[in-house]
Amino acid sequence: MTEELAEPYLRGVLATAGLDVEYVRGDGDTLYYRKGDDEVPVLDFVGGYGSTMLGHSNPEIISYARELLAGQTPIHAQFSRHPYANEVAAKLNTIIKRETGSDESYFAIFANSGAEAIEAAMKHAEFERYVRLEGLRAEIGANIEAVRAAVTDGTVAAAEANALIADVTAHNEALAGRTPLFLTPVGSFHGKLAGSTQLTYNPVYRVVFSALAAQARFVPVDEPGALDAVVESERRWLHDVAIDGGQVKVVQRPFPGFCAVVLEPILGEGGIHEMPATFVRDIQRVAAELEIPVVVDEIQSGMGRTGAFLASTHLGLRGDYYALAKSLGGGIAKAAVMLVRASRYQSNFEMMHSSTFAKDSFSCLIAAKVLDTLEAGDGEIYRTAESRGAELRNVLQDLMKEFPEVIKDVRGRGLMIGLEFLEQGEARSAILRELHGSGFFGYYLSGFLLREHSIRTFPTSSAVYTLRFEPSANISTADIAKLAEGLRDLCGQIRDTDGQRLAPVA
Amino acid sequence: MTEELAEPYLRGVLATAGLDVEYVRGDGDTLYYRKGDDEVPVLDFVGGYGSTMLGHSNPEIISYARELLAGQTPIHAQFSRHPYANEVAAKLNTIIKRETGSDESYFAIFANSGAEAIEAAMKHAEFERYVRLEGLRAEIGANIEAVRAAVTDGTVAAAEANALIADVTAHNEALAGRTPLFLTPVGSFHGKLAGSTQLTYNPVYRVVFSALAAQARFVPVDEPGALDAVVESERRWLHDVAIDGGQVKVVQRPFPGFCAVVLEPILGEGGIHEMPATFVRDIQRVAAELEIPVVVDEIQSGMGRTGAFLASTHLGLRGDYYALAKSLGGGIAKAAVMLVRASRYQSNFEMMHSSTFAKDSFSCLIAAKVLDTLEAGDGEIYRTAESRGAELRNVLQDLMKEFPEVIKDVRGRGLMIGLEFLEQGEARSAILRELHGSGFFGYYLSGFLLREHSIRTFPTSSAVYTLRFEPSANISTADIAKLAEGLRDLCGQIRDTDGQRLAPVA
Repeated sequence: MTEELAEPYLRGVLATAGLDVEYVRGDGDTLYYRKGDDEVPVLDFVGGYGSTMLGHSNPEIISYARELLAGQTPIHAQFSRHPYANEVAAKLNTIIKRETGSDESYFAIFANSGAEAIEAAMKHAEFERYVRLEGLRAEIGANIEAVRAAVTDGTVAAAEANALIADVTAHNEALAGRTPLFLTPVGSFHGKLAGSTQLTYNPVYRVVFSALAAQARFVPVDEPGALDAVVESERRWLHDVAIDGGQVKVVQRPFPGFCAVVLEPILGEGGIHEMPATFVRDIQRVAAELEIPVVVDEIQSGMGRTGAFLASTHLGLRGDYYALAKSLGGGIAKAAVMLVRASRYQSNFEMMHSSTFAKDSFSCLIAAKVLDTLEAGDGEIYRTAESRGAELRNVLQDLMKEFPEVIKDVRGRGLMIGLEFLEQGEARSAILRELHGSGFFGYYLSGFLLREHSIRTFPTSSAVYTLRFEPSANISTADIAKLAEGLRDLCGQIRDTDGQRLAPVA
Repeated sequence: MTEELAEPYLRGVLATAGLDVEYVRGDGDTLYYRKGDDEVPVLDFVGGYGSTMLGHSNPEIISYARELLAGQTPIHAQFSRHPYANEVAAKLNTIIKRETGSDESYFAIFANSGAEAIEAAMKHAEFERYVRLEGLRAEIGANIEAVRAAVTDGTVAAAEANALIADVTAHNEALAGRTPLFLTPVGSFHGKLAGSTQLTYNPVYRVVFSALAAQARFVPVDEPGALDAVVESERRWLHDVAIDGGQVKVVQRPFPGFCAVVLEPILGEGGIHEMPATFVRDIQRVAAELEIPVVVDEIQSGMGRTGAFLASTHLGLRGDYYALAKSLGGGIAKAAVMLVRASRYQSNFEMMHSSTFAKDSFSCLIAAKVLDTLEAGDGEIYRTAESRGAELRNVLQDLMKEFPEVIKDVRGRGLMIGLEFLEQGEARSAILRELHGSGFFGYYLSGFLLREHSIRTFPTSSAVYTLRFEPSANISTADIAKLAEGLRDLCGQIRDTDGQRLAPVA
């Protein structure tokens, strides 16, 4: 037996819920594990957290990928022409222009993961802020020079002016060094790299690392006025100088302390909550007021899952930047992209940011193929996602009616659905109370569904009472019925038993 | 003509040096572009900045990848058993134990790019620091409680003790919020994500974003005492309390202000400079003294290129962490890994850090295959890299003897070689002075070699007077002769002409 060196602790945690299965094959919405000589099919509703909109091992994608490899596609050709990257950018622009009704173009920066796309967005937003801040400081510097000139001319009093200049300079220096802030909803998930993990609400993923990078202010989405209060509490002023009637006076200029608003149209790991319309309006107003970009993280919600290419389309939310990944890679490639609208784009960013692995022919050509597949038949797959999603949602809502003591809510849109269970901290069953206390409640539900019904589900990672369903667009009525059967058994276990069959197994 | 939306500005810059070629195929050390109906072969010495140790489109790797795809390998199976990841970890452990002569194991955290592996290392190092800092604060808190108890007992004077506790608490609170620091050599390159770009020396990649993340202190590697001076200048003390003879006194405890030392054994983008032995010794001493990990970035230098699996092996440098990527993916997969030695490993990190795309079956199985290929025949490829590298180096050294007015230095090890040109800021040729002034000197040399000799090279990105050569282990004597011929022509152009053939082309 080899020593386990790739995350053995995590595996142990998975084992307690019976989730430490070894999958050997994926096909459509099915993952297979081996039992003796047989393969056991597992119906997969996790779908790589939204990566398998076209299913596992989509035959056209696999076939195209094999062809690219056989054709010796030039994967490592950095710093040359990348027409395939342009092709992806062009296709995305066509779709986004259609959905947003705008004709402004977006420039594309490629990445290897969703988290990398978010970090590129953070960097680009900080670049914008840097340019504005330097511009303001240059203006103020020129005004200070004007005051100095006036001192030399004798038009203003030297001692007073010099003292004031010293104060203003010290104030501005201190403020300019202030770490910038991001605004993002409570419950957000934007990745786990050094920067992006700070935009991720779950304290387990964030707090230990909070000294490493710029911080977010997390805003509750359903408290009117909360966003404005946060912005107000962080408002700071640079000091400028002006001469008025022979007197030098201090003039306040708004300090650009925020980089960007970053938000998911539907919180993924935060429990499948669509952004309320009022919050979306507030965000747009505040971003305009602060002159900062709205970064729309469509990494999980995008790529057609919700019945539109962008989940933000349903909200009437147009992003200044977009981040896409997961299903962009067609279930096999590590493809990700960050888009910036032309009017905000800093072309020099191209000389500052790059990655050896990103913008490669393989992931770009796969992404282009995925986009073609989504757009085929006048976007038939978007309508399929919507109708399949409605079917799934109806089944879950019926279940909620059947088990009002167990299920709290059914939420989401299209094939991005959450099923929230009622908390069991006060349950009769000691086992349920124990599962509640573990902090991994939903994972034990997932373990039960896997062991007893060969169904793969997971809770959203930061809201473990919500199971999430993100199958491919090919999910069938029979698959949905099988899920309903498993969930009915699960709900019965919670409502009617001592919870023994949900108990830790290892 | 489609609007260019994928980094058109960069393409324009490439075009001025004639580098905006579209490659259509890669095979071994050759990339091909199309000219009419023909394919034009280009001999590639860039090799994806070290990603093609096994060549472009290595037939065994391609064949295995196609087989995995045809076999429906379960790429999206997050939160399940990943024996293929364990396999990669085990193989890496075998190799590293052999090369370092240690039998301590390393745990593996997977990533999608080298930059992501570095960010995982930054996070893990910060986790270590966090644990130490919290431990120190808890000890100090307990000592403060002891003083309070002594006040209650009347064994120490209340007013004095309380004032001192208030001072100590305020001092420690302020210090604990201090942003941590990293130590890394001048010239380092560790990636361009929000955190890792701060460990990257080149100001173009770093300065605009410096407010986003924790900073590095960059240490010159050839100045005795520089490292100690940096450490000394950043030394800070937490204040602890102790009771001594009925008096409360303040005791200084070292504040853990540094997270880690992060270094490449051979600077890649910084101009192909191997770390001097004295600096390596200093780094090890200082890291031990500060109790911080040494993170060895083998992303470009590792995977056998230098004649050993790890370039650090030649330096007698053992890492507490390692980062690997580039050739780990065999020229096709986005594979990356971060290793942490067992005695420093924080197993809870597995619950805090993950990535949808990382640790997947495809990239892990390709990485395992790559490691098998490197280790085959008792590591024959390491010896090949050494001997081919020696041949390449000899040819370049002969060239330096032939053109002492043009070439300044030949450096590196194995198949990671740098050729530094003398600066041309004072050249007779106006064109050469112009190329110097552009900041892209080496890119124009690359353009000349590509246009006139069908040879692909690039300067190191942060030291543009150094061309870098990182071909595959299959590079032939004929290929090296072809390179020498091209470089001889180039050197002649610089020495003997007005530089017209090197001039911007677009």
